Amino acid sequence: MPEAIAYELAKKQKEISVAEFFERNKHILGFGNPTRALFTSVKEGVDNALDACEESGILPDIYVEVKNPTEEECVVIVEDNGPGIIKQQVPHIFARLLYGSRFHSVRQSRGQQGIGISAVLLYGQLTTGKHAKIISKIQDDQPAVLTELAIDTNKNRGEVQHQEIMHWDKPSGTRVEVNLNADYKRGKRFVYDYLQSTSIVNPHARITFKEADGTEHVFERTADILPKKCEEIQPHPYGVELGTLIKMSKETKARKLASFLKTDFSSMGDRTANAVCDEAKLDRNLNPADISRDQFLALHQAFKKVKIMAPSTECLSPIGEILIRRSLKNETREISPEFIFTASRPASVFTGSPFQVEVGIVYGGNLPKDKPVKLLRFANRIPLLYQQGDCAITTAIASIDWRRYGLDQPSGNGIPIGPAIFLTHVASTKIPYTSESKEAIADVEEIENEIKLAFRECARKIQLHINKKVRRVKTREKFDLITKILPEIAKKSAHMLNKPIPPLEKVITKIMDVVWIEDVVEYEKVRGKPIQRKLDATSPTGQIESGGWIAKSTIMVVNYKSKPQKFNLYALFPKDAVVGEVKPKPTKVTDSYIKWSLESIDPTKKIDILFELAGLNKGDFDENELYVQNINPAYVIGADKWEGE
Amino acid sequence: MPEAIAYELAKKQKEISVAEFFERNKHILGFGNPTRALFTSVKEGVDNALDACEESGILPDIYVEVKNPTEEECVVIVEDNGPGIIKQQVPHIFARLLYGSRFHSVRQSRGQQGIGISAVLLYGQLTTGKHAKIISKIQDDQPAVLTELAIDTNKNRGEVQHQEIMHWDKPSGTRVEVNLNADYKRGKRFVYDYLQSTSIVNPHARITFKEADGTEHVFERTADILPKKCEEIQPHPYGVELGTLIKMSKETKARKLASFLKTDFSSMGDRTANAVCDEAKLDRNLNPADISRDQFLALHQAFKKVKIMAPSTECLSPIGEILIRRSLKNETREISPEFIFTASRPASVFTGSPFQVEVGIVYGGNLPKDKPVKLLRFANRIPLLYQQGDCAITTAIASIDWRRYGLDQPSGNGIPIGPAIFLTHVASTKIPYTSESKEAIADVEEIENEIKLAFRECARKIQLHINKKVRRVKTREKFDLITKILPEIAKKSAHMLNKPIPPLEKVITKIMDVVWIEDVVEYEKVRGKPIQRKLDATSPTGQIESGGWIAKSTIMVVNYKSKPQKFNLYALFPKDAVVGEVKPKPTKVTDSYIKWSLESIDPTKKIDILFELAGLNKGDFDENELYVQNINPAYVIGADKWEGE
Repeated sequence: MPEAIAYELAKKQKEISVAEFFERNKHILGFGNPTRALFTSVKEGVDNALDACEESGILPDIYVEVKNPTEEECVVIVEDNGPGIIKQQVPHIFARLLYGSRFHSVRQSRGQQGIGISAVLLYGQLTTGKHAKIISKIQDDQPAVLTELAIDTNKNRGEVQHQEIMHWDKPSGTRVEVNLNADYKRGKRFVYDYLQSTSIVNPHARITFKEADGTEHVFERTADILPKKCEEIQPHPYGVELGTLIKMSKETKARKLASFLKTDFSSMGDRTANAVCDEAKLDRNLNPADISRDQFLALHQAFKKVKIMAPSTECLSPIGEILIRRSLKNETREISPEFIFTASRPASVFTGSPFQVEVGIVYGGNLPKDKPVKLLRFANRIPLLYQQGDCAITTAIASIDWRRYGLDQPSGNGIPIGPAIFLTHVASTKIPYTSESKEAIADVEEIENEIKLAFRECARKIQLHINKKVRRVKTREKFDLITKILPEIAKKSAHMLNKPIPPLEKVITKIMDVVWIEDVVEYEKVRGKPIQRKLDATSPTGQIESGGWIAKSTIMVVNYKSKPQKFNLYALFPKDAVVGEVKPKPTKVTDSYIKWSLESIDPTKKIDILFELAGLNKGDFDENELYVQNINPAYVIGADKWEGE
Repeated sequence: MPEAIAYELAKKQKEISVAEFFERNKHILGFGNPTRALFTSVKEGVDNALDACEESGILPDIYVEVKNPTEEECVVIVEDNGPGIIKQQVPHIFARLLYGSRFHSVRQSRGQQGIGISAVLLYGQLTTGKHAKIISKIQDDQPAVLTELAIDTNKNRGEVQHQEIMHWDKPSGTRVEVNLNADYKRGKRFVYDYLQSTSIVNPHARITFKEADGTEHVFERTADILPKKCEEIQPHPYGVELGTLIKMSKETKARKLASFLKTDFSSMGDRTANAVCDEAKLDRNLNPADISRDQFLALHQAFKKVKIMAPSTECLSPIGEILIRRSLKNETREISPEFIFTASRPASVFTGSPFQVEVGIVYGGNLPKDKPVKLLRFANRIPLLYQQGDCAITTAIASIDWRRYGLDQPSGNGIPIGPAIFLTHVASTKIPYTSESKEAIADVEEIENEIKLAFRECARKIQLHINKKVRRVKTREKFDLITKILPEIAKKSAHMLNKPIPPLEKVITKIMDVVWIEDVVEYEKVRGKPIQRKLDATSPTGQIESGGWIAKSTIMVVNYKSKPQKFNLYALFPKDAVVGEVKPKPTKVTDSYIKWSLESIDPTKKIDILFELAGLNKGDFDENELYVQNINPAYVIGADKWEGE
């Protein structure tokens, strides 16, 4: 009897080391071609540097250099002023794939896979056969350590080729130097674009880029404060996988179901934990180790039925609408766009991981009218430059019918065509990238939905803005007619008839029949003493320095109706701004709006309103968002109906 | 002195198990959402089954079933008649990531990563907490073994939960049954599409799909022969990475450089190996173990300078132009397209791996005129249904200016708009997928270029076809005029003048001044005895069975020039066809064309030519490609200039 083929086949079965796997599949890591390889190497180095600095509370000062380019090879250097890495860890961190500190923690960070920087060294070794050089210094009073590293891909381990102590001027930091096969000529532009975009969404970082010919670009920091430190949290029960739940129960230290729920998950207080147990018909005192699969299933289903608080956003560090606006303004300063609108969604959850979406739209100016809208994609403050086609951001944008918002979109889906830039930032404790090269977000329904909602919100603001403009222009025509031509006619007629000029107020109000609200925002430099808060709103950004800007908002309200009008007016302002002088005295000031209960305005009479905002850059706030209450909004030009509480 | 932050950070560094990594990054493997998860699970199972059958020379008979769908969960079953798997290997193959037989071999196969099927089990366990069931039988006279499997993700190892012997009717085979979280309602269509597309490019496979409601779809096999078995080869020297070269030198058994080159690389004979050594200025007898990095560099550069034979295509199994044409015809049978053209490129190399590109274009019929062209993408006979946006196939197609070929393409790049379907197949010993989910090909320049060349070739054929059609229509008008109206006028005038009808030949030839070639292809069923080859061409497909089709090609050549014409005529035919009767006697028959040295044709005289082709399906060959030699092609309608040898 011949031996079954299965025995023959079994002999060929082999384990594959993870380093070997990625060595053969380098395109998965973003090293598919020499242009991209250069970009990916710089990106992984810089992402790592930023994470290390932020984790240690250090304002990042990052230096990137590309040198000695030949047709085949060049040297990439990334240096930071971070906390450094202890000698023993260097081979693990830089030359061992799937090794890192950020994989197991639920917190927003750039790195999350433990692959990036080791992949750069792996690629460098694969394509040049040369070893990488790492310099690291962990404390000012200690010398730096230089390590030359190779990777044993069969074992997925770093091999120290040489190690020596050396002097380094920095108090602390890390410097990576890798030789790699790269196309410097074509890749340079991508490196520049990436560093520029990175600096836009990381205003606290100073980034220097030295080109091979010696040209230095410095992207200066524009903020001296680190972004809010992201707290590490527990997974949120919404969307946690059944398998993960079972695995967590095996690893918990809790001996009772209720305490397991409270300690190992976020957003779980006594009341919610008990409600979940009751819903699942499980004893709160059950030992997690003794729970059966069916009981876990009941628990898993109970998560969905009980109302659980949204995840804390402490673990997330969104860019913020003001900063998005600012970076879009910066990106388009030579284009003089017609308007910029932003929208920010509340935090949401997918498979247990909190995430948050922020978007911005720039419209008009010199942007090309016949090209697809330009997309700027960011994930956890990393610019995504490749793989736009299959990113959840692209899919979400393409699925909106933009024709309703005045953009061209042949066949009603796809990237719209028109003079606009769309920026999207997704912040999450775990970005679901489509591959290890971290260039596109996977098609997770929850994320796509949030992106859609954010863009719809933004688009609605645009529509509102356009409608308001159209309505204002129309009313303005009427206004001009009656306020300029009517008195002229009255005067001439009176003169001809030799009669006194008749009072026109009643006629004007009858024809206009609206309350007209007009506003203007001007900026003034702060001189002398720092501005102080005068009102009860709490400031999210703290003390305002002298030398900054004050936005002065002047609002004129005229009653062109035939009866006196009395109503409430609301003016929204950006969350990070600090309110200064307000006239007349407002009824209420929160962290996002000012409310006035206006006194009664007689027909054809006018009220002037003024408020000042500090803590903004010039241009952060260009146009008031005004709302009215206790008046039919159909009669108001320049403000909408207040829908707030 | 406070401890450096680096020590604190070092404590958090941890190894990540590969199973744990993919468990948390399941979107990378194609399990990003429940719809896609269903599709991916079926795909991995079927790809595996097809590979196993083909490797063992078994005509695949594959059964796919999805059952018990709830809103959250369903059961996926994939069963094959392959060689089975020995008991000891089951936990490794199905529940250990990065373990397999195809990773280390240079040969075209669907699986190449050692991840696919284990990922399905991993996802199933993660989302349902249930174990997978594997049944395997390796020999007719042995019982089958049922194994219940779990995965220990911390260790990346399979854990046998239960194993028992059972009876199974099949001679041999494997059956996988996995519970998983999936959206059956939305995912069903993708499973169907995938199985249908798979059956198109794998005509030797019989695939049955049983839906959850019991409906069964059978995709019958249309060919009883397995595709050519792909040989395992050594890496090709072109594009092999320097690091890989060094690694190979460490692992070789050869003790001399020349023999290392000959035994460890493909396309390396004595002469080439010596030429490479000479070019690199290296002694042929050098021990590979003693070669320095600089010497390797010289060797690596010498590879590029010495002309090395293209890689053998024995390791590749392209679909073939006829089959592509046939599948496109099948895909569009309700559309009645105007034409189908195909093109096939010779094998090429990227980073040491041979690959080959084949494309096809269907045009016209009822295909929508205002939608982007439909792309059908295949890699190693696997249909690629997702991530079209960032696939090298898409990028290559989008970079061609299709407006030159009569398709609409706003802004001159991007997927063209028009009534067409573009099919692309990339066959390679290693497809560079963008991620482990194997849904898109990475942007490797060599591959993109070959795809572009193939489509340009195909587009040129289309252009030629269109030009020929336009020219023919124009000449036809002239032809109708002079052959119908002129004699009519002559007759009437002669009648009126009471004179004899003048001879018109000279006038006709003077006005036409062309050689007119027209052809028609008709199909006839083969009856009785199998057709036999009559001529010297070698048949690539072997014996033609009775009951097949014969294509009868009739070519009419008329001389409408004023002098006798004598020239050579060439008719191309598909490579897999067998030539039957040919009249008049040809001068030459190769495996791709027939040549006639035609006798001199007098003015207004006609020659009829006929040839028969067997071994084709009806419609495989619709239109002759005719070429002429020894005559000014500008005077010929219906054939182009012969550019061959």
